[in-house]
Amino acid sequence: MNTYGEKFKLSIFGESHGTAIGVVIDGLPTGFAPDMDKVAQEMARRAPGQSETATARTESDAVEIVSGLFEGKTTGAPLCGMIRNTNTQSGDYRRNLPRPGHADYTAHIKYKGFSDYRGGGHFSGRLTAPLVFAGALAKQLLQGVTITAEASAIGGKPPCDETIINAKADGDSVGGVISCVAEGLPTGLGEPFFGSVESRLSALLFSIPAVKAVEFDDGFSLADMRGSQSNRTAFGILGGITTGQPLRFRVAVKPTPSIAKEQDTVDLETNQTVKITVKGRHDPCIVPRALPVVEAVTAIALLDLWLLGGFPLQ
Amino acid sequence: MNTYGEKFKLSIFGESHGTAIGVVIDGLPTGFAPDMDKVAQEMARRAPGQSETATARTESDAVEIVSGLFEGKTTGAPLCGMIRNTNTQSGDYRRNLPRPGHADYTAHIKYKGFSDYRGGGHFSGRLTAPLVFAGALAKQLLQGVTITAEASAIGGKPPCDETIINAKADGDSVGGVISCVAEGLPTGLGEPFFGSVESRLSALLFSIPAVKAVEFDDGFSLADMRGSQSNRTAFGILGGITTGQPLRFRVAVKPTPSIAKEQDTVDLETNQTVKITVKGRHDPCIVPRALPVVEAVTAIALLDLWLLGGFPLQ
Amino acid sequence: MNTYGEKFKLSIFGESHGTAIGVVIDGLPTGFAPDMDKVAQEMARRAPGQSETATARTESDAVEIVSGLFEGKTTGAPLCGMIRNTNTQSGDYRRNLPRPGHADYTAHIKYKGFSDYRGGGHFSGRLTAPLVFAGALAKQLLQGVTITAEASAIGGKPPCDETIINAKADGDSVGGVISCVAEGLPTGLGEPFFGSVESRLSALLFSIPAVKAVEFDDGFSLADMRGSQSNRTAFGILGGITTGQPLRFRVAVKPTPSIAKEQDTVDLETNQTVKITVKGRHDPCIVPRALPVVEAVTAIALLDLWLLGGFPLQ
Amino acid sequence: MNTYGEKFKLSIFGESHGTAIGVVIDGLPTGFAPDMDKVAQEMARRAPGQSETATARTESDAVEIVSGLFEGKTTGAPLCGMIRNTNTQSGDYRRNLPRPGHADYTAHIKYKGFSDYRGGGHFSGRLTAPLVFAGALAKQLLQGVTITAEASAIGGKPPCDETIINAKADGDSVGGVISCVAEGLPTGLGEPFFGSVESRLSALLFSIPAVKAVEFDDGFSLADMRGSQSNRTAFGILGGITTGQPLRFRVAVKPTPSIAKEQDTVDLETNQTVKITVKGRHDPCIVPRALPVVEAVTAIALLDLWLLGGFPLQ
Repeated sequence: MNTYGEKFKLSIFGESHGTAIGVVIDGLPTGFAPDMDKVAQEMARRAPGQSETATARTESDAVEIVSGLFEGKTTGAPLCGMIRNTNTQSGDYRRNLPRPGHADYTAHIKYKGFSDYRGGGHFSGRLTAPLVFAGALAKQLLQGVTITAEASAIGGKPPCDETIINAKADGDSVGGVISCVAEGLPTGLGEPFFGSVESRLSALLFSIPAVKAVEFDDGFSLADMRGSQSNRTAFGILGGITTGQPLRFRVAVKPTPSIAKEQDTVDLETNQTVKITVKGRHDPCIVPRALPVVEAVTAIALLDLWLLGGFPLQ
Repeated sequence: MNTYGEKFKLSIFGESHGTAIGVVIDGLPTGFAPDMDKVAQEMARRAPGQSETATARTESDAVEIVSGLFEGKTTGAPLCGMIRNTNTQSGDYRRNLPRPGHADYTAHIKYKGFSDYRGGGHFSGRLTAPLVFAGALAKQLLQGVTITAEASAIGGKPPCDETIINAKADGDSVGGVISCVAEGLPTGLGEPFFGSVESRLSALLFSIPAVKAVEFDDGFSLADMRGSQSNRTAFGILGGITTGQPLRFRVAVKPTPSIAKEQDTVDLETNQTVKITVKGRHDPCIVPRALPVVEAVTAIALLDLWLLGGFPLQ
Repeated sequence: MNTYGEKFKLSIFGESHGTAIGVVIDGLPTGFAPDMDKVAQEMARRAPGQSETATARTESDAVEIVSGLFEGKTTGAPLCGMIRNTNTQSGDYRRNLPRPGHADYTAHIKYKGFSDYRGGGHFSGRLTAPLVFAGALAKQLLQGVTITAEASAIGGKPPCDETIINAKADGDSVGGVISCVAEGLPTGLGEPFFGSVESRLSALLFSIPAVKAVEFDDGFSLADMRGSQSNRTAFGILGGITTGQPLRFRVAVKPTPSIAKEQDTVDLETNQTVKITVKGRHDPCIVPRALPVVEAVTAIALLDLWLLGGFPLQ
Repeated sequence: MNTYGEKFKLSIFGESHGTAIGVVIDGLPTGFAPDMDKVAQEMARRAPGQSETATARTESDAVEIVSGLFEGKTTGAPLCGMIRNTNTQSGDYRRNLPRPGHADYTAHIKYKGFSDYRGGGHFSGRLTAPLVFAGALAKQLLQGVTITAEASAIGGKPPCDETIINAKADGDSVGGVISCVAEGLPTGLGEPFFGSVESRLSALLFSIPAVKAVEFDDGFSLADMRGSQSNRTAFGILGGITTGQPLRFRVAVKPTPSIAKEQDTVDLETNQTVKITVKGRHDPCIVPRALPVVEAVTAIALLDLWLLGGFPLQ
């Protein structure tokens, strides 16, 4: 279940505090020379330690390409990109104290107590780094397509760093809404039903930790319209298939569950409710770092549908 | 791309005005004796012609089981359920006049003019009948789980038949919001990332024609909260995995695009804008008939994850 | 597990003595007008009751196309082909007496006693009829490619009807070897490792009941050569990929397990060894009827790899 | 297409002369503590430089586990095992001179001249190292099952080192036949048709470079029998499903195509036939090193079917 795609296939691996994280990408066209500077830029957008509103952790997130590239060009064989974990403080985590709002409890139950609980292990938002890497390649292949995500709300208000800084000052965190638009798409990407653009893309968007809602085109607003009005909307998708109009969607990002404030949790050994102070170094708002992730998975989903539909790459 | 599932696999086929529609279901446990009365009840909830607020078409939607059942019990071989199309008025449709808000245009382009345009062909909402059939079986297998969908808004207001009747009187249609809850789930369904409950379920929900938005738990409202507040929410899913709490989600259904009012379309032969009056017999609001479909795909997604997770069926 | 293919996808269903058998085919190009006479010819080659050396059963094996075809051309939606079972003598079979050499015993155990045992149920060679149907379409799409299977041995000797007639006269059966060659293939079909032509094709060939061995190019003879000799062989496949030379392979078909002679079996109710006389009407040699099946699955595997490789269809 | 498995999933990557080769394994049960000594033993059986009859290259083939293991036990997250390439002499290879009997030519055409041609690149037999690693884990999980492969013929004769040494002395190579038996299997592994044990296992066996034929049970000999005789055979598989009897099969391994003797090839730049002397360091017979590979892929296929069938692991 850690594999995505039909023609542009990803297999992700790794844990937040393990040796490395990475992705195997199968289905890249041959002879493609990735612009590694552009890749590094995308990685930097997602990387921690960029600004006051983000976590104090600094990780270079340099991707080592261990296969699939020869003389700077893709060979047709699977490309494996790997990122070593270098800056970890594993002592901040304890197996028996699941952090509220995190996957700690569900992972503990599902994996019968054997999951790597340090920093969320395989569930960590850190696993979005390989997605950004894969997305950076996908973006370069989708020539003529532009994918742009931006925050449209933070903490229920128009985006503003102050909202984040205030939350941080309170030992708290905020969520937000990301709006994304993909332009330059041909008519005809996607399939009816299970292969609809909405189905494929939402599956990836909901893979991003903290994403809890996805709406396409005018989304929930469409539910309030009459047909005579909604039929005049510039749909980017009809019948699961791109119309050639801009593809628009919005996602809701919940607040970072890791907050400095003391919270209640249940000790899994004693079954007692106890107080927990989540240490670690965390983002008071994950939205800014999620923007390149949203763009990346959009590129991944669209490239896969692009190749499935037999559309040529330039 | 007309196939869904890893362990409980569906392949759907058929067109609205063709010979038949149906589904091949692979992965049913052996020795399961479906209660066909319950199946018929689910089919009836979705079938047209039930009330004043729905289309005047009447279709029995009787499912013929052509394989996989022996002496009333599943054999372990694929079960194929087929529904003959009996009540069609194909003369109402023309290839060159795509109906606004429908898949007619995208299907025409994607399939190079060869798609069956009558009643939406394979894109028709009628293809949700096989999903309801498969979902009815899934529901019976998920003993102890209850899945309940209800309209939480119609036309932007609390649900009320008058809203629908007024829209119909105006030659128009309305959309709405469906709230669904699944109770009785164990902790541990789902996977991180691509196999998250949200990913798997949203992929199916967005397969339902007219669904344009999906939010889980408190969805977009979470984006407005602070972490200290959202962490106290009773999440049904954390890290993509069920918590054991009720699984809650809402979907936005756009208004039926087929309306009696005259509309503009583009004649695909002449490229001229022309007036179109969509004849056919259509629902002024699809929400009531979509309820069993939402429940069905929820049951399908959950059963697949149930079997994938190795949970026993009773 | 009843689904095959990446781009040209099949889902088969049905039992020998059930209502119908069939196949859902997804991934057909749009606008393809199948020559139904050619399809019927392929079906006739496989159908029972053709000659003295075959079973006395006669089944028309007429395929009803219930979806995916509109005005005689493929629409891009899944095509479902169904064949009604009309000529069955189910009284010839008993659940508790597994026929030697058949799947009766393994199916009984695997499906916990619920499998349809009549005529082998879903395990019946009759399920190759939908494969021949799908293969007939694949053949037509693979313009410029010829696929020809012929018997190269029957009962350990050069093919000869007398061998079959003698076996039949003894209440016995014989097997044989089928040699197949596909010509007109481009260089470049297939993938290294799991997607090798040998892997893909052998998976389908071993899906044919009674096939117990597959060798490509010079097969087992290559094991006896020195490298300097084998390197001069005209390989049809190197590194899992077609070379452009003819693709040659041979398959071993075991003797029909249904024979008139009295045999020993174990009564599954009493665990006693008892005598069984397999009634039914059976082929003393299945090889002649298996020829179109071998050609069909070859066409299916090659078309799937053709589409995967992005090769154009004429 | 570099991915195998439904429940025990592998994604392999790497090239012979690139940075590293490896495999991502998804679907391992949690809490499994692999015996790394046993893993190393399996790796050593396949590794080069073991004896006079093998290549002079020495590669440690130490597997670095970069994810999926925590405190020595599997976590439920994908396990990535990586093997650095340390001992490469890439100067021995030239892009324009495809080595006879190798994938060089087909890879060149398929990947449009961009494949990594050094040592066969991704097509190298070296990629079987990650398979042996994955198989070593699978073997440990299949408690009670023993899988044993042995050479039953080398160069057309009973196995004997002299045959190999003579071939080497002649600047030539030999192939052979490997017989494998898996014992301790339950009744009920596998599925009819596409998921038959023969289909699943042959797909993996033919993924091994140099394997050109596979026969199950009595294979080609069955084709010469009468039904009354073959029905008395102790089949390990009937109807695609294990019977509980030993699962027996044989594979043909072609001679190593890399030989010291001068050979003809076609220069891909000039289209002229030219002489080539394959330098590198190669095995005069690959059969001994292929034994652990055959066992490994057998374990992989069986474990996948084991998990698919819902059989418990001890």
